[in-house]
Amino acid sequence: MPKEGVSMLVIRRLPRYYRYLSELEAEGVEKISSTKLAALMNSTASQIRQDLNCFGGFGQQGYGYSVSGLREEIGKILGLNEIHHTILIGAGNLGRAIATHLNFEQLGFRLTAIFEKDTKLIGTMLRGIKVLSDDEIEAYVKANDIDTAVLAMPKEAVEKMIDKLYGCGIRSYWNFSHYDISKKYHDVVAENVHLSDSLMTLRYMMNQ
Amino acid sequence: MPKEGVSMLVIRRLPRYYRYLSELEAEGVEKISSTKLAALMNSTASQIRQDLNCFGGFGQQGYGYSVSGLREEIGKILGLNEIHHTILIGAGNLGRAIATHLNFEQLGFRLTAIFEKDTKLIGTMLRGIKVLSDDEIEAYVKANDIDTAVLAMPKEAVEKMIDKLYGCGIRSYWNFSHYDISKKYHDVVAENVHLSDSLMTLRYMMNQ
Repeated sequence: MPKEGVSMLVIRRLPRYYRYLSELEAEGVEKISSTKLAALMNSTASQIRQDLNCFGGFGQQGYGYSVSGLREEIGKILGLNEIHHTILIGAGNLGRAIATHLNFEQLGFRLTAIFEKDTKLIGTMLRGIKVLSDDEIEAYVKANDIDTAVLAMPKEAVEKMIDKLYGCGIRSYWNFSHYDISKKYHDVVAENVHLSDSLMTLRYMMNQ
Repeated sequence: MPKEGVSMLVIRRLPRYYRYLSELEAEGVEKISSTKLAALMNSTASQIRQDLNCFGGFGQQGYGYSVSGLREEIGKILGLNEIHHTILIGAGNLGRAIATHLNFEQLGFRLTAIFEKDTKLIGTMLRGIKVLSDDEIEAYVKANDIDTAVLAMPKEAVEKMIDKLYGCGIRSYWNFSHYDISKKYHDVVAENVHLSDSLMTLRYMMNQ
């Protein structure tokens, strides 16, 4: 789903630029050349210039980038200036880690509710949010302005859950299960996090 | 660090093949054509044939792939047949999720110890493993056959920890922090999981 003509590889580098620029800004750096940014990011100046040129450039030859200006521009490209409401499904270990570990508000989302089917977890607090029963999802999504769901639940349970969420109008998913949402529903946006794939990739690299 | 001449993009698709083939095997499927595998994986037959040809092929024209045979071969390429011992640093929410969520043994690793600096967590059990104090890391790593560390700790604390782990001989890292290990130590293998980058990518795709 990238911007027309911009490869998904470039898109996936944008958050990294945004992260480094946020750190530079926090350190009080005002300007940076593509060469210096490249050294910092283990990249090359030409890669950075090429990537940013996909979105219009932002730099001035021989002058460098304005750190806060470029950060803001990339933030806008990513859509971080506009907050979407999201719910989290699953308050087990993974759901707890996601809820407590991520700064949703800085990443373009507001986490407004958490749902769980395990009765032992329902009613507990997580990031200041009371964990609700799965049974309340439909009413909640319909009554509130929710367009995104984070799925921290076992693969086996996801298909039924997706049917429900899709039925309520949710079209964006951050999915930690191995269930392939976009295979069943073609008009959804799904970003998948496959932790086990990442660990296998490490295992492969260790042998090279 | 890919096999010579094989792009990292192909490497990153191997775990996904492995996952699908494992599921097919569990369902009792014995043979599958590249066309059918492609339909299942939302890929194309030519992509699959191309990817697998990087490692020698494994299929027979007009016959299809042996599911268990191909799964085993890809497992070998990934190195899953040989188990490496790993420790986890950090028993907070993220560490707990990693320890309980991942089948390390099926992914080429054995999680043998967990370390934490928070005294409230030291001594608790996690996946049947007693959480030890950070102070015990060096002695433990030296006394045991550890070559990998999983880092589930804040970025600020990682640099000092890496210096310690590198000093003990650990060269492989599964890193959930935003600290760039391979920038300081060039002879390490580091696989980074940047959850916030993934969430920002979703935010981007929602706007397209």
